[in-house]
Amino acid sequence: MDYRIEKDSLGEVKVPKDALFGPQTQRSRNNFKFGKLMPMPIIHALLQIKKAAAVVNSKDGNLDQDKANSIVNTIDTILNGNYRNEFPLHVYQTGSGTQTNMNVNEVISHLAEELNSAVKIHPNDDVNKSQSSNDTFPTAMMIAANDAINQLLPTLKTLVQKLNEKEIAYKTVVKIGRTHLQDATPITFGQEISGWKSAIQHDIDFLEENKKTLLELPIGGTAVGTGLNTPNHFDSDMVKQISKQLNEQFKVAPNKFQGLANHTGITMVHGILKTLATDLIKVGNDIRFLASGPRAGYDELNIPSNEPGSSIMPGKVNPTQIEALTMVGAEVMGNDTTINFANSQGNFEMNVYKPLIITKFLESANLLRESVESFTDKLVNGMTINQDRMNELLKNSLMLVTALSPHIGYERSAKIAQKAKKNSTTLKVAALASGVTEEEFNKWVVARDMTNIDR
Amino acid sequence: MDYRIEKDSLGEVKVPKDALFGPQTQRSRNNFKFGKLMPMPIIHALLQIKKAAAVVNSKDGNLDQDKANSIVNTIDTILNGNYRNEFPLHVYQTGSGTQTNMNVNEVISHLAEELNSAVKIHPNDDVNKSQSSNDTFPTAMMIAANDAINQLLPTLKTLVQKLNEKEIAYKTVVKIGRTHLQDATPITFGQEISGWKSAIQHDIDFLEENKKTLLELPIGGTAVGTGLNTPNHFDSDMVKQISKQLNEQFKVAPNKFQGLANHTGITMVHGILKTLATDLIKVGNDIRFLASGPRAGYDELNIPSNEPGSSIMPGKVNPTQIEALTMVGAEVMGNDTTINFANSQGNFEMNVYKPLIITKFLESANLLRESVESFTDKLVNGMTINQDRMNELLKNSLMLVTALSPHIGYERSAKIAQKAKKNSTTLKVAALASGVTEEEFNKWVVARDMTNIDR
Amino acid sequence: MDYRIEKDSLGEVKVPKDALFGPQTQRSRNNFKFGKLMPMPIIHALLQIKKAAAVVNSKDGNLDQDKANSIVNTIDTILNGNYRNEFPLHVYQTGSGTQTNMNVNEVISHLAEELNSAVKIHPNDDVNKSQSSNDTFPTAMMIAANDAINQLLPTLKTLVQKLNEKEIAYKTVVKIGRTHLQDATPITFGQEISGWKSAIQHDIDFLEENKKTLLELPIGGTAVGTGLNTPNHFDSDMVKQISKQLNEQFKVAPNKFQGLANHTGITMVHGILKTLATDLIKVGNDIRFLASGPRAGYDELNIPSNEPGSSIMPGKVNPTQIEALTMVGAEVMGNDTTINFANSQGNFEMNVYKPLIITKFLESANLLRESVESFTDKLVNGMTINQDRMNELLKNSLMLVTALSPHIGYERSAKIAQKAKKNSTTLKVAALASGVTEEEFNKWVVARDMTNIDR
Amino acid sequence: MDYRIEKDSLGEVKVPKDALFGPQTQRSRNNFKFGKLMPMPIIHALLQIKKAAAVVNSKDGNLDQDKANSIVNTIDTILNGNYRNEFPLHVYQTGSGTQTNMNVNEVISHLAEELNSAVKIHPNDDVNKSQSSNDTFPTAMMIAANDAINQLLPTLKTLVQKLNEKEIAYKTVVKIGRTHLQDATPITFGQEISGWKSAIQHDIDFLEENKKTLLELPIGGTAVGTGLNTPNHFDSDMVKQISKQLNEQFKVAPNKFQGLANHTGITMVHGILKTLATDLIKVGNDIRFLASGPRAGYDELNIPSNEPGSSIMPGKVNPTQIEALTMVGAEVMGNDTTINFANSQGNFEMNVYKPLIITKFLESANLLRESVESFTDKLVNGMTINQDRMNELLKNSLMLVTALSPHIGYERSAKIAQKAKKNSTTLKVAALASGVTEEEFNKWVVARDMTNIDR
Repeated sequence: MDYRIEKDSLGEVKVPKDALFGPQTQRSRNNFKFGKLMPMPIIHALLQIKKAAAVVNSKDGNLDQDKANSIVNTIDTILNGNYRNEFPLHVYQTGSGTQTNMNVNEVISHLAEELNSAVKIHPNDDVNKSQSSNDTFPTAMMIAANDAINQLLPTLKTLVQKLNEKEIAYKTVVKIGRTHLQDATPITFGQEISGWKSAIQHDIDFLEENKKTLLELPIGGTAVGTGLNTPNHFDSDMVKQISKQLNEQFKVAPNKFQGLANHTGITMVHGILKTLATDLIKVGNDIRFLASGPRAGYDELNIPSNEPGSSIMPGKVNPTQIEALTMVGAEVMGNDTTINFANSQGNFEMNVYKPLIITKFLESANLLRESVESFTDKLVNGMTINQDRMNELLKNSLMLVTALSPHIGYERSAKIAQKAKKNSTTLKVAALASGVTEEEFNKWVVARDMTNIDR
Repeated sequence: MDYRIEKDSLGEVKVPKDALFGPQTQRSRNNFKFGKLMPMPIIHALLQIKKAAAVVNSKDGNLDQDKANSIVNTIDTILNGNYRNEFPLHVYQTGSGTQTNMNVNEVISHLAEELNSAVKIHPNDDVNKSQSSNDTFPTAMMIAANDAINQLLPTLKTLVQKLNEKEIAYKTVVKIGRTHLQDATPITFGQEISGWKSAIQHDIDFLEENKKTLLELPIGGTAVGTGLNTPNHFDSDMVKQISKQLNEQFKVAPNKFQGLANHTGITMVHGILKTLATDLIKVGNDIRFLASGPRAGYDELNIPSNEPGSSIMPGKVNPTQIEALTMVGAEVMGNDTTINFANSQGNFEMNVYKPLIITKFLESANLLRESVESFTDKLVNGMTINQDRMNELLKNSLMLVTALSPHIGYERSAKIAQKAKKNSTTLKVAALASGVTEEEFNKWVVARDMTNIDR
Repeated sequence: MDYRIEKDSLGEVKVPKDALFGPQTQRSRNNFKFGKLMPMPIIHALLQIKKAAAVVNSKDGNLDQDKANSIVNTIDTILNGNYRNEFPLHVYQTGSGTQTNMNVNEVISHLAEELNSAVKIHPNDDVNKSQSSNDTFPTAMMIAANDAINQLLPTLKTLVQKLNEKEIAYKTVVKIGRTHLQDATPITFGQEISGWKSAIQHDIDFLEENKKTLLELPIGGTAVGTGLNTPNHFDSDMVKQISKQLNEQFKVAPNKFQGLANHTGITMVHGILKTLATDLIKVGNDIRFLASGPRAGYDELNIPSNEPGSSIMPGKVNPTQIEALTMVGAEVMGNDTTINFANSQGNFEMNVYKPLIITKFLESANLLRESVESFTDKLVNGMTINQDRMNELLKNSLMLVTALSPHIGYERSAKIAQKAKKNSTTLKVAALASGVTEEEFNKWVVARDMTNIDR
Repeated sequence: MDYRIEKDSLGEVKVPKDALFGPQTQRSRNNFKFGKLMPMPIIHALLQIKKAAAVVNSKDGNLDQDKANSIVNTIDTILNGNYRNEFPLHVYQTGSGTQTNMNVNEVISHLAEELNSAVKIHPNDDVNKSQSSNDTFPTAMMIAANDAINQLLPTLKTLVQKLNEKEIAYKTVVKIGRTHLQDATPITFGQEISGWKSAIQHDIDFLEENKKTLLELPIGGTAVGTGLNTPNHFDSDMVKQISKQLNEQFKVAPNKFQGLANHTGITMVHGILKTLATDLIKVGNDIRFLASGPRAGYDELNIPSNEPGSSIMPGKVNPTQIEALTMVGAEVMGNDTTINFANSQGNFEMNVYKPLIITKFLESANLLRESVESFTDKLVNGMTINQDRMNELLKNSLMLVTALSPHIGYERSAKIAQKAKKNSTTLKVAALASGVTEEEFNKWVVARDMTNIDR
């Protein structure tokens, strides 16, 4: 491969001849060669920060208007083009994200000169002006995290809406309830769905009420949080400008020392994502067990047959969407462990697990979004009930005996149930044999009444 | 030991002669013999629920006024007395907490008869009237969890207040900042403390904004969430009565099916506790490293000498309060893993990890409360600074060279720093040797200005 | 309460008048007031270490024979008596366990003087001679951990043996297999059990092959691992003496620096305990789902009715033993997270999470032991099958169609299965309707042959 | 894009015109569109299994020699070529890995026909003969996991070897020890390194002793573990053939039911990886703290300056390799949480978290390998000591006073230390002022003797 030679304070570096990035990026490439690449939302957020900084620095008189224009135009070019290959650094690099910050600075300055050779743009002195990796990177983390939550929310709401449609559709379909996996008193399938919906709705509410913590940008803190080398009001000006660019209501972090050294907000919001993950696993497990069978399972639900379950066995429909969803859930729980550890490990004015924290956060948010979207679209959407089976299980249930008790007394009721159990008959057969009339039985034992759905 | 014989549907049970509990409690004792006991706050919350139920059932005409009075008086007696031994069941029992619910019912009915033999109280028909373990236990979980957070909050606020006092006291004490554990630009110790304070304050805010989810009581759902065997408005009447008894603003759970089968709110709020744990570990680590020494460490801080660190070595002060605090932090992170798993494992109308979930939640909240109280009282309170050491480290720092750069240029500044490094001198010595006058140096290199504390 | 006044280098301490412990214990009580007490197995292990040290120091001529005898006799008295109240310190104390080490030293010296006032025993100079908390405490951790595993193993083997009995009993009972929760090809119940057994057996093997790492005692390392203030061969002499006392094959830790600063072996063996926990959850879930019903579940198994599941509903048998077992499993997974964190946090010559690490390890090992014992005794032992139900589910299964395929071809077989599905008939009905003779069907479709149990 | 139409039992599927994969792969692409791709080691392992099956089936007379040859040649072509794009499926798919198994079958059959159109190869009937996804996929998991450990081990051994070189080099370099972060008695740097080395060596030993569990291949179990549709000895023949192909000593899984439904071995071995991760974090933290400074930190070590730490600040060398290493450590701990959850969630004859489990296992093993390799090469290798600083810290330490005590008594020694502390002098200055002669002091206070390095 062809190289050009660049220099930095440690000496010469061979940089690929046509690369827009420069020596600091290349040194990182030489020193860190493994693992995932830094997520693009971080690059995009950094680009927006650099754009805002050019605007603010120029307004403040700290950057020539020509330079600012060149930087802004260049960033717009990058945002609208395909420059993925110019951001080749890995997550496993310096824990402050400095190398990625410099990667962005270098690409902007290099491309700016290609686009407009009349204006010289220096990666540090111009693009990074009034900034430090130590404040731009955590600011980019917040922007990216907030965006990921914003993308997740509509997907969750669509799931809730679909569940709501199903709830309405099956509002009065009575079926057996189950506690401890054992037959319990009746419930309507609509009620059962409402429980699933309520769990997800709680998580939506938690996200909506708490995502404001992701709006706190520590920009303006520079190296250690003091704002060294920033002009007055740089922080608030930057936050206004970034808010304008991204159409969002960011605010200045209430404490920039904390903004650099702790990732409290991200850790807390990921705590909601893990809660969501656990709720989704519960919903997924319920559906796949209710759809188990077709003959030797609960078999109350039909789920869409998206793939041949078996070449010869009709009715073998594997709950594959749920399998993908619950794998995601397990992964999100693991990511939570990782983020917890990482957030605990800040030292003094810095936490050096930044690239990992944001990568795991984005993985969780994106995997949840994509898996929930797929689950909603390819499973919930097409889920139907086996009403005959629901009826049959309900009819056979001995648990309905509780409805007899107020009329014929506890003791006689219990004997009827015991007899039904012993003789493997329905409750009705045993009740009739025990002197209850069919009319009475039909009047007293009305499963629907036991659900209170009409209350 | 002396026994009395009691009977239930499975036959005879030997119950300790003088026990207030009955056969169902005893069967649980026979079948579950290991591990921690059910936490008392759960027992207390169940007692409050039973008291409220007696009041509401009596108002509704579903329970004789005499019986209601007897139940209420009995519960007040228990709440004001020492009946710990009457609640001998373990956390590891049935996952719905049924056995503990019955334990409470049995003790109330038995003691009620001892206190007032004129009125017969049946554990199921009277004490448990209109209820099921399946709704009382998760309701008790919410009451206990909410109370634990209410107890935690003042302790956290006291810590924040103490940190605030220290922040003010050391507002202008300039010291070296550190990023990547490497010397960085100056900061005041007040600023450093403000970062710690801000992290804890964030967690306080998260708790205050989100604890309302713990107010959602699923009482009235009974066995599967449908409210079978409850009168109309039983749920809202109960919530009003419990709120009155406990002086709290509880509300009816928006969905009782979810309230029985998911513990979304508790899982989410524990997500805040784990965030708090990670923030406390960061603060604790900062303090113990800053207090490391006395000669071969950072040695910027003095922490109280609560115990002899060594019989012969003066100045050996081990940061034991922090060691306890960070052990608690590690435990809370583990509890979060446990709760996440447990919340994911609901099936249909029930989650059978209830006793574990609430036990771990209470452990986390209480350990955090107690360790933070101890840490605040016995460490933060008495923490002082070694101002000479802070000054010395700052004076020796080469990082102040950044303040020269605007005046004599980047290149000359860098050479001065390099010379100081090479010759192991201070920056000032190198600067003066390089032609900067002492007057200039003293004017230009003012660490305090670099902190922006006076901005 | 009555106090006596004792003095240490920090001044006066009020110690309860009759306490055997002294000022250092009391200071810890004053400074650390919350949470669990230090587990007794750690106290017992420290007592054994002190006893061994008295013997070895005396043999080496470093301790008067009189003193050694007094210490040994005193320790035997403590080991055989009830002195629980004399060890009142908490887990959350100094992370090296120093305060508990001193508690043990103080109690021995004090009681020794009570037992034999002629010989003065000093807690540091005599009882702690040639030792440091920094080596005795991690040595005690290893002894206690090893003992907990030794106690766990027989319980696991009993479970495997019981499963083996069931496997043999149900070796040829054919039932439906299930994959993805969907009906699959036949299996015998003995085969299914053999899978459960094999998982537990793997974990037993892992424990037996790896527990030797717990035999590595860092005794003799004293304060930082160098063995300062120990005579030559003190380490190996101590290990021999402790091995003799406890009838175990301990060995000198290959590296004492690591033995003080890392808890690699304990972390790794706990990794086996968490694996065991996950395997037990799988087994428990299988059994409780197979026992789900009685009417609306799989209903293949009967589990013992240990408690009334419901006062009116016969056949409602809640799988409470499994609920306890799986709660333990969830807790062990959380403990693993805690121990992982703790082991990562050593600094230089010390890890200050020692009391927490050993507490969580012992909790896991003991909870697993007790819950498995209960599960084996009260559930596995009495578990029986519903052979009729197994037969019925098998007979109804469409999956047996795979046995027709070799005889009548894939396409015709598939059509038969599809017809059975569509018409809700058995496969046999559909096959006969499709031209297969009953004789052929009975010859070809033999579920038992599909299990290869007779291969 | 151009498509061809293929059919399966659910109807028509549009497959990219030139794709070697077929309809089942395409359906998975349609249904599962997000997340990471299935790791290539799994594809490679499946290819080896298919190759072995062709050989064994052909020997058994169950597959024409022509077909077998064609399959074998095709697989060799794939293994030697670049066919990554033909395996486009994601981790988040069916939890049995069926779709990837079919992907491999389809690609082989399609390419076989391209390479040799004279022989028709059917993806199910020929390539998948005597197999099921349910046994091939877990077999591939074992093969891939074992290979990943085999690749990890040499890297760990290289680290241990480098640490050993350093240990030897600094065997007698005396420095201050630190416990509780507080100055403690002396240690040599070689001894300190030996502790790091010992931790890693323990983990190597654990891996070497336990990786045999990964050799247990469940091949031959087919759909549910019974081996339906396999000839006699197929399992052992396959294991022999795979062992021959991969030059490894695989063995038949002792229980195939467990081999399909549990991933005990992988979970347990990952427990060693998480232990390794925690040990590496400890080592990394020690090094970065010892290298902290250059002026306001411990500053005992120099680490290689791989990147400019700061453009103006000489000596600012950020411990970036350690930051990458510890991020990996945090990720491995999270992966452990994920795998634990996943292994607990098997049901009956299947665990449907297979793709996730193996993906996380491979991620952990590979990230550890790559980060340790980088850490060894770019940090440990070039790490040097600041001997002057070590000497200075040692000389200033008050902890050496313990060496005076045997000669002048405890009380006088303590006073000397207190005086040195109070007056901020060295111990020597205080001792001389207190009447100890310089000769005596130099003879008695020899730090090296306190390390027992010459014992």
